[in-house]
Amino acid sequence: MDFPGLIGPAFDHGSVWLVGAGPGDPGLLTLHAAYALGQADVVVHDALVSDAILSLAPTARLEMAGKRAGGIRTQQLRINDRLIQLARQGLRVVRLKGGDPLVFGRGGEEALSLAAAGIPFRIVPGISAGIGGTAAAGIPLTHRRLARSVAFATGHDSSGDLADVDWAALSRGSEVLVFYMAQRRIAQIAERLIQAGRAPSELVALISNATCPDQDVRISTLAEAGASVASIPAGAATLILVGPTIALRPLLADWQQTEPMTVAPRTARVRAKG
Amino acid sequence: MDFPGLIGPAFDHGSVWLVGAGPGDPGLLTLHAAYALGQADVVVHDALVSDAILSLAPTARLEMAGKRAGGIRTQQLRINDRLIQLARQGLRVVRLKGGDPLVFGRGGEEALSLAAAGIPFRIVPGISAGIGGTAAAGIPLTHRRLARSVAFATGHDSSGDLADVDWAALSRGSEVLVFYMAQRRIAQIAERLIQAGRAPSELVALISNATCPDQDVRISTLAEAGASVASIPAGAATLILVGPTIALRPLLADWQQTEPMTVAPRTARVRAKG
Repeated sequence: MDFPGLIGPAFDHGSVWLVGAGPGDPGLLTLHAAYALGQADVVVHDALVSDAILSLAPTARLEMAGKRAGGIRTQQLRINDRLIQLARQGLRVVRLKGGDPLVFGRGGEEALSLAAAGIPFRIVPGISAGIGGTAAAGIPLTHRRLARSVAFATGHDSSGDLADVDWAALSRGSEVLVFYMAQRRIAQIAERLIQAGRAPSELVALISNATCPDQDVRISTLAEAGASVASIPAGAATLILVGPTIALRPLLADWQQTEPMTVAPRTARVRAKG
Repeated sequence: MDFPGLIGPAFDHGSVWLVGAGPGDPGLLTLHAAYALGQADVVVHDALVSDAILSLAPTARLEMAGKRAGGIRTQQLRINDRLIQLARQGLRVVRLKGGDPLVFGRGGEEALSLAAAGIPFRIVPGISAGIGGTAAAGIPLTHRRLARSVAFATGHDSSGDLADVDWAALSRGSEVLVFYMAQRRIAQIAERLIQAGRAPSELVALISNATCPDQDVRISTLAEAGASVASIPAGAATLILVGPTIALRPLLADWQQTEPMTVAPRTARVRAKG
């Protein structure tokens, strides 16, 4: 796929680009992201980034980060250190993460760490699952008269427990609520939202593997969301949306096209350990 | 710029792609968006979409939509009808909008109108200004321990008046608040947030022309935001962010790179009236 006339900014040796890979469909990479992958010497990526997307970096060494050993905090400190180490070797480093780096992606922590070490960095925003995943599911995130405000939240803290947020305010402040990585807490979240005055019959969408060929969308209600989530395969990246715009989905479904972009396989390459 | 191996989904004659153009930097277009522009027979675009981005559709006829005559509602109905008319002529139609089509972009209304007319459509998400613009300004939208929830709102209704939302709940429900197209209402919004318990000294970022070469970021406080906004040039697209992560900006500024992608000018072309 050729886009004549485009000229990318310099990707300097010894710098790090914190790049959002979007929700899954390679066509939702930005031009900056695809350009950075083509230039990179090394790509430090999360487990959720697909092989199709990684094949856009045919000459880069790949390192998988985000392994579970040692707890989230240790793991993040290790990734921060690794990015600094690679940049100090004079490499062009891409840190590639699903979705957007700054929407529950810990890109802010990585950026602060790089800045503190005096390493030039760039943040390349990505299509967050809350935006791209809901669109692929045929659910408008906002809609005139139905939703004038939308809130993105995780629903859990870094230990995995239900987050200590003002659930009543969150519930009443925005018509549409999007929860990231919250499938294990959805029963409790739904209970809090009902306590805050949302109707038990209010629609909930559970969107797994959004924008990918195995995308799975389940429509449930606050009263039944806990039971619905139980049947989602473990390991699926699931987004949970609550709000009145879910009701528009059946009006769109027959005419909406969502086929992803594909990437032809390229040559084999060395995979390094992170 | 060449990305070998990428294969786009079919863009059928007689279909409409509702495409987000991102906040301004052409490098923040998605691959789907750039691909669609290259295939399109006609591009119906907003005033905010730059010539650089439009030059990625060298063979398409361009129509400017979103003119102010007749009020927002009449204007939207006219755009809906025009998209249907163009698709029924068998054209491949791109409806190109700044940001994301479904984040205060009225893409949902266009999609409903197309579905009701039996016209196949695709929604191509874009980098919303609330995500891409804040990143370019060096402000993490979320950050562990500082912001576990972020709300996007317009702050005004379709007549331009202050929106009838639960300001106290919105204020307490999310640590970070992002207001779109709200510069004319910022003094009232700030007052409501202070009434809801936010500190008058809380930081506010006013981000104009985000990700463009003329990007302008002003840091103010809730108490002074109304005065700060007065000096922003009329016509600038301004995003307003309130929240604790603004405090991180000075820690990142010295090392963050934000140079946009550029597009070499191409041949002259016919511009049609919408």
